[in-house]
Parts: sequence; C-alpha cells; structure tokens
Amino acid sequence: MRLHSPKTRAFLLVRDHVDSSVTRFLRERKFVLVPTPVLSPSTDDAPHFTINYYGTKALLGTSSQFYTEAGLMAFPRVFSMAPAFRREPVNRSTPLHFTEFGYLHLEIANANCAEVMNTIEDLLATVVEDCNSQVAAELKLLGRRISPPRRPFRQIKFDSVYPGVRNEKEFSEISHDATMKFSHNLTEPVWIVNWPASVKDEIYYKRDAQNKDITMCFDLIYPEGFGEGSSGGERETDYQTLLSKSDLRTMTRCQWYLQMFKLGLTPHSGCGIGLERMFSWVSGQRNLKRILPFYRDQFNIAP
Amino acid sequence: MRLHSPKTRAFLLVRDHVDSSVTRFLRERKFVLVPTPVLSPSTDDAPHFTINYYGTKALLGTSSQFYTEAGLMAFPRVFSMAPAFRREPVNRSTPLHFTEFGYLHLEIANANCAEVMNTIEDLLATVVEDCNSQVAAELKLLGRRISPPRRPFRQIKFDSVYPGVRNEKEFSEISHDATMKFSHNLTEPVWIVNWPASVKDEIYYKRDAQNKDITMCFDLIYPEGFGEGSSGGERETDYQTLLSKSDLRTMTRCQWYLQMFKLGLTPHSGCGIGLERMFSWVSGQRNLKRILPFYRDQFNIAP
Repeated sequence: MRLHSPKTRAFLLVRDHVDSSVTRFLRERKFVLVPTPVLSPSTDDAPHFTINYYGTKALLGTSSQFYTEAGLMAFPRVFSMAPAFRREPVNRSTPLHFTEFGYLHLEIANANCAEVMNTIEDLLATVVEDCNSQVAAELKLLGRRISPPRRPFRQIKFDSVYPGVRNEKEFSEISHDATMKFSHNLTEPVWIVNWPASVKDEIYYKRDAQNKDITMCFDLIYPEGFGEGSSGGERETDYQTLLSKSDLRTMTRCQWYLQMFKLGLTPHSGCGIGLERMFSWVSGQRNLKRILPFYRDQFNIAP
Repeated sequence: MRLHSPKTRAFLLVRDHVDSSVTRFLRERKFVLVPTPVLSPSTDDAPHFTINYYGTKALLGTSSQFYTEAGLMAFPRVFSMAPAFRREPVNRSTPLHFTEFGYLHLEIANANCAEVMNTIEDLLATVVEDCNSQVAAELKLLGRRISPPRRPFRQIKFDSVYPGVRNEKEFSEISHDATMKFSHNLTEPVWIVNWPASVKDEIYYKRDAQNKDITMCFDLIYPEGFGEGSSGGERETDYQTLLSKSDLRTMTRCQWYLQMFKLGLTPHSGCGIGLERMFSWVSGQRNLKRILPFYRDQFNIAP
C-alpha cells in the first residue's frame, strides 16, 4: 500500500478538498443531492458487471444519469455522486480507465447546453481556486502549478478534432488516441461541440432542431494530456421520439425511464463528470494507478 | 416513483442537509475523506453478493471499515462514505434493512472508545441543529419535531438490555426484536456498552485489558423505535492476537489487513454509521421504503 508515501498523502488531501469544493459549489447553486443506487439496470451499452440478485440478473450501474434526471420531478437542479462500474476489456488498460470510479451527474431543468457548460466552467474554476488556497503545499509537493481556467472555454467543432470521422464505429476506433493527442496539445480546457448524429446518437440526447444531423451534446477535454473530463447535452424529453429510438432491450430494461417522459418531464440538460479525471487534472497526476491506494482495474481487485 | 410527492421532496431535502452537515462537521474536526472501493473482499461474515471479476470471484463490500482503518497510515483522523451491500435473507424483510445502503466509517488514531463516542454525540447534535435551522419547513411537513440530544448520552450495560443472553447464537435470535423494543421505550439516544466477548468477538475488536471477558465496543441506539444507529469500538492492533483469532478464510481474504498490523499500525478506535438509519431518525420516518425513490431490498431492484 502507498498510504505511507508523502505523494499519496498529498494527493488524498487534494482529492478531499476537490470533493468538498464540488459539493459546496453545487449546494450554493441550489443543486440538491439525489440518492442513486448502484444495483440497477444499465443505462447505456457500456460493458457491465452482472450479479445474481435473488434469482434475477442485475447490473452494477454504469451511470446514474437516468436516476439523476428523475430527480428533476422533485427539484429544478439536482446532482448525484456515486461509484459507477465498467467492465473494461482486458486488452484495454490505460492509466485513465478504472472498473470502479466516482461519477458526478448534474441535471438542470429548463436549461440548454450553454447553461450546463457555464456551470461546469464555474465549477472547475472554483475547485482550482479552492485547492490553490487550501492545499497549496500539497500541490507543490506533487509538482503541480495550476491556474483557474479562463472562461468561457473555447468551443471547437467535432470535425476539426476528428476530421473525416463519419460514424460510431470509426469514432470508437480512433477516439481514445485522437482525444489524448488533442488533449496533449491544449493549455486550457476546451469543449468539443457540433457532434454529428451519425457519431453520437444515444437515445437520451436531443437532435438540433435547426439541423437534424447534429446532436445537442458536448465533451469537455482537459489540457496537458489529462483527456476527456465530461460528456453532456440537452436531453430528449419527447416520449414518441424516445420510443422510436429505443430497441427492445432498452424498452424492457428502462421502461420506468421511458414512462417518466410519457407522464411528462420538463425539458432539461445535464452532464456526467468522471471524478478521477478531475482529481487527476487538478493534482497534475497523469497516472492515478501509481498513487491511489485502492483503485480497481482489470488486474487489481485487492486490497 | 414518489418524486412528485411533497413528503419525498421534503425527505430528500432533509437527507441532503444531513449529508452536507455530516461531511462539514467531520472536515472541521480534521477528518480526511479516504476513498474506499465497493469491489473488494468481505470484511466480516455478513451475507454478500458476489460477481465474476475477470474470472475471479469478488464481492460487493459489506463494510469499508478495513480500508478506512488503512487510511490511518496517512492521517490521524479519517472517514469514508460509500455504499455497502448485504445479501439479506429473503425471509428477513424489515423497514430497516436494505440490500444497498450508505455507510459512514470513521477511525481516530490513539483514541479510545470514549473519544469516538464523544465525536458521534457531537456529530448527531450538530446534524439536528443544522436541520432545525436549515430545513425547518421540511421537518414540519414530515411531522417531525426533534431537539439536539442531551450530551453525554446515557450508557447502559449489555446485561440490562439483553438479560440472560450468553452467546452469539442466542443474541442473533433475539437481537432485532429486543433492540427495537428497547429503542421504542427511549426518548434520547443511548449507548449499549460492556459487551460480553462470548456475544461479540469480531477479530477487529480489542478485549478489555482489565477484564478479558468484555469486548471494548459499543452500539448506538436511537430512541422512539428508530433502532440501532452505529457500532464501533477499540480496534485490535496486535498482530499475534489478530492472527490467533483468524480462521483460514479470514487469513486468505484479508491478508493485506493482517499484514498492515504486522508492519505496525498505531492503536485506534472507530465506528460505522448506517446513513439511512440516521436520515430515518432525523426526519422521523420509520419506514424509508415508503418515501425513498430508489431503495433496494429483497423485493425491489428497479427503478
């Protein structure tokens, strides 16, 4: 275990302050924490772990997004923070991919993409300010100098970052390497926008009303090779559209989610933020597997 | 779903403020949040869920205690907050038992039971004060009037609460009903102390040096039928004692934990606090299954 190491100690203090800064920021902005379960149906096609749940097959949740969206029935601004699980392929082991990781979700009623993006920009700037004032010595020990990013972040179109990529399969083949290369050349966080519907077309994203070939979503890319930090967008809330985009599996597994829109849910936008990526960027540690005491990946289950 | 209901809304707001109050209190007292994994070996004999983890059998953690204790290698005061999982028997369904629940652990270096008990007393008083000042309207809507408990809490000996109970089997047969009956008759939280080693003898608890028949541990009991709220005690840190109390399964599964004490870990005390029980007591809701939107028990996996 690395808990005796000064670097791990410094990292854990930074991590603790980021966690505290994130929740304080969100609560000051009137976001309410919605409890979301781990044991659940899957919300997307991410590879998952299954368990035998009293004779029924259940999954370890890959994302709390659907539950967080449901929270909008109670409050206009909601967030969740919970572990999520991905059964990463054995042959895809990178410093960025964990099988268990912290996932922050936030959803805002009657908001468009811009409002969510502004919120994340303010959140990241606040987190960096808080860490610079509260854990300066730890950041120094970790060799990290970081300034609050300049707002608004630059927006770059999909086609400039991934030229020539026209469908989901092409994208999934090149996305990790191309995104990392793009990230390495940045000095400030940026947004990738204008995603072709042929590349990103999850049922829960809305298409652009002005141009049906574009999905209303965005990715946040951290600079200096820290990679992708968040994905989000405007949610599809039209029941008939959701139904027409669903396959049988989605309809069975996520019946309650579809039902919610049949009854009517206010238009909203939101995003998911991988917490380890944020800790990594703030603390300047590219490989958390060298510093985290109890991480989980394809090759590490204990301690 | 109950998210449209005013009671659920009020409960979720109280819950959010309890969560915020707990973490703020602990951080003000210099506790550092230690990240603990869900995917792990089991730390006790609580019934668990298993998963196939790349060909190896892994468990959904029933408690983060061992990982939290490990955090003492880095900091003198640590806490963790994470979901925990128990495979409750199908025939034991009560309003208090969930298969997935929030678990707060805290550990304090060079502390005895009294210091941990004082900390929990202050924590609970602070949480109630914060809720009375910040979510008074919600508590009123839930029909809850609650005052900060008087400190120090009363300490009652095991023999007065469970007279005649001499071993673990006898205790497990009567404990739920007897504890609930005891809790119903209380008007303030109390501690149950002086646990016979014949009843409670987990390897991680220390025996009383003055009286080897007594285990250095305590249970917190909420008043008004809200049941057990916390278990904790002074941890065994002597490697030879731990080894002599371990069976082969413990030695295999928790080798890293035993190893930690072979290398030497400072004496410490700590406890685990079930968060749903705390939310239940503060909000005055005896059956959270009637009010929580996404709870998990033997009969409920979705949504």
